[in-house]
Amino acid sequence: MSAENFSDEPTRLAETIVPLFARQAGAFTPVAAPDGSRVELITGADDQDDCAVFRLTGNHDLVVGTDYVRGPKFRLYEMGHLDEYDLGYYLVAANLSDIAAMGAKPIGLLSVVRYPAEMDDVLFGFVMKGIHDACAAFGCPNVGGDIGGAERLILAASALGVCPAGGALLRSGAKPGDVVCLTAPTGLAGAAMAYLRAGIPDPVIEGLLPSLLANWKRPVARIGEGLALAASGVVRSCQDTSDGLKATLLSIADLSGVGIAVDERAVPVPGSVAAVAAHVGVEPLALVLGDSVDFELVFTVPPCRVDELAESVDFHRIGEVVEEQEVVLVGEDGSRAALPGKAWRHQGGGDGKA
Amino acid sequence: MSAENFSDEPTRLAETIVPLFARQAGAFTPVAAPDGSRVELITGADDQDDCAVFRLTGNHDLVVGTDYVRGPKFRLYEMGHLDEYDLGYYLVAANLSDIAAMGAKPIGLLSVVRYPAEMDDVLFGFVMKGIHDACAAFGCPNVGGDIGGAERLILAASALGVCPAGGALLRSGAKPGDVVCLTAPTGLAGAAMAYLRAGIPDPVIEGLLPSLLANWKRPVARIGEGLALAASGVVRSCQDTSDGLKATLLSIADLSGVGIAVDERAVPVPGSVAAVAAHVGVEPLALVLGDSVDFELVFTVPPCRVDELAESVDFHRIGEVVEEQEVVLVGEDGSRAALPGKAWRHQGGGDGKA
Repeated sequence: MSAENFSDEPTRLAETIVPLFARQAGAFTPVAAPDGSRVELITGADDQDDCAVFRLTGNHDLVVGTDYVRGPKFRLYEMGHLDEYDLGYYLVAANLSDIAAMGAKPIGLLSVVRYPAEMDDVLFGFVMKGIHDACAAFGCPNVGGDIGGAERLILAASALGVCPAGGALLRSGAKPGDVVCLTAPTGLAGAAMAYLRAGIPDPVIEGLLPSLLANWKRPVARIGEGLALAASGVVRSCQDTSDGLKATLLSIADLSGVGIAVDERAVPVPGSVAAVAAHVGVEPLALVLGDSVDFELVFTVPPCRVDELAESVDFHRIGEVVEEQEVVLVGEDGSRAALPGKAWRHQGGGDGKA
Repeated sequence: MSAENFSDEPTRLAETIVPLFARQAGAFTPVAAPDGSRVELITGADDQDDCAVFRLTGNHDLVVGTDYVRGPKFRLYEMGHLDEYDLGYYLVAANLSDIAAMGAKPIGLLSVVRYPAEMDDVLFGFVMKGIHDACAAFGCPNVGGDIGGAERLILAASALGVCPAGGALLRSGAKPGDVVCLTAPTGLAGAAMAYLRAGIPDPVIEGLLPSLLANWKRPVARIGEGLALAASGVVRSCQDTSDGLKATLLSIADLSGVGIAVDERAVPVPGSVAAVAAHVGVEPLALVLGDSVDFELVFTVPPCRVDELAESVDFHRIGEVVEEQEVVLVGEDGSRAALPGKAWRHQGGGDGKA
């Protein structure tokens, strides 16, 4: 590794960013729909203009969202479990997860990377490389951004996606009778955090830790799944679980004006999450449903269409949309209870996610 | 004013943001072009979905950019010359200035507002009101964002705009012979900063201070001018002066592969800037050309078309594009010198602008 260098912004732009993000417009695979609609990237980050430019022809719904990721307060980073590359990667996944939840294809990401004076060129390069590699993994160019000094590491981004007109998956479309589905188990990210914050090493859980931490180090935005859900034409509502599964269910119910009956036996509980729950002394479903920052998708489908959807997308069926506007956990014996777990982080919380 | 309240995020979302940004989709004026191309807002911030949704039909160039604005390090805020409302307002103007520089019509802004524990609901409301009012002033809805706690006030945003396909004004199109134009004098923002940082009160400049600070408190993104420049069809390159006039000229020259001869006598020097320059002991052009964060537009036009453009847009003619790839200040006597002023803020700089 080279000696520490602390280049100024124009130098970092010229030496790190431009090479890393070169020839974007040429490398962009145009989005083309059967009706002739098309999206191209005309001016990318490497063109260093005031803005990036996309050309859209035909009929599109354009979806846009934004997410901030904590720097040093991002606790696992402070604790040494995540590095600068991981934070850059995470920033992209967190933002593209919102695009996935709309059933859209990501076309571009804008990133804000502000760094403290003690972050040298190598560490700065790791942040940008994490952003670059995640963008490559998810097929979405980093078309612009803002770099510069700050008191501490600050990461934020916005993401853009497109889908056929009328095809975006909203949170508000759930109807009574719909089956409530989940792309994959939740609670892994929260279990990693709970275990590491407890600070009591356990030999079994140490062995599970890499897989628990994978949700933080290489989180997956469910873009392919979101596109398949949108293409199916049978999904009535969808949201990602970045605020936790409980918060997601409450949000879909609230915005759709319905209730949800969650089947306690049907909610997947990974063994590693159960092991952490036992270790830290909470019930497993509190980790699975609580404020674990996973990027799975919750969606609802009419019961007569759910089997057909299962042929093209993997998911768990965890409950049913009901008329009564209440979200409850239904036990094997028919008992009804409030969902366990923390619903949403509050002012001052430091979980690393917006 | 009410007693201090420190509500959690869901409460601030429900009580401050949703009322402030209600009924966005209904209030959005569709962008409609003569060829039938159209932009509508389908799902706004008040719909609380994963993303906002625009519907684009026809042919569009979509331009997107992002800018971070410093919070407490924003020196004039720390010094008490700007308040929370002003910072919110500034965030929007800084981001929309990039859209203006592309000659595009803004259609949406995404904002990141993270606040320290000591910022109560009233101050948080001021930030959001500043964002809201600037968006209203510039005719661009705040379609989404990310709020939550942080160690300090952190503000960032991304902006979206549209223009007819092929109509975006790039930095790279300047040609030798073009007249270099500037929408209005620069240096005011930098003069305010230079005077206040010097800390030596002067009765004459105190009287000028409100007008100097106006560029910070109510900055104007030159959206109307940008649209007129793009519509004229005669503008070959354009950039905003948010990095300072010198940096802007250097950037256009660099990306266009040309040089620029700036006419020393033609660069407008406001009297208030000259007064500050004399007070702090620098040459006036160092403030006018240096890293003053104004949001004017620099653009280039073939000489045979510049008079016709002047009938619809106000601007100053400050120089000429030349073949030799050098940016110089040409004096009345024909002398050639490097442009005075600082070209770009460097790592660790704290001028309030990205």
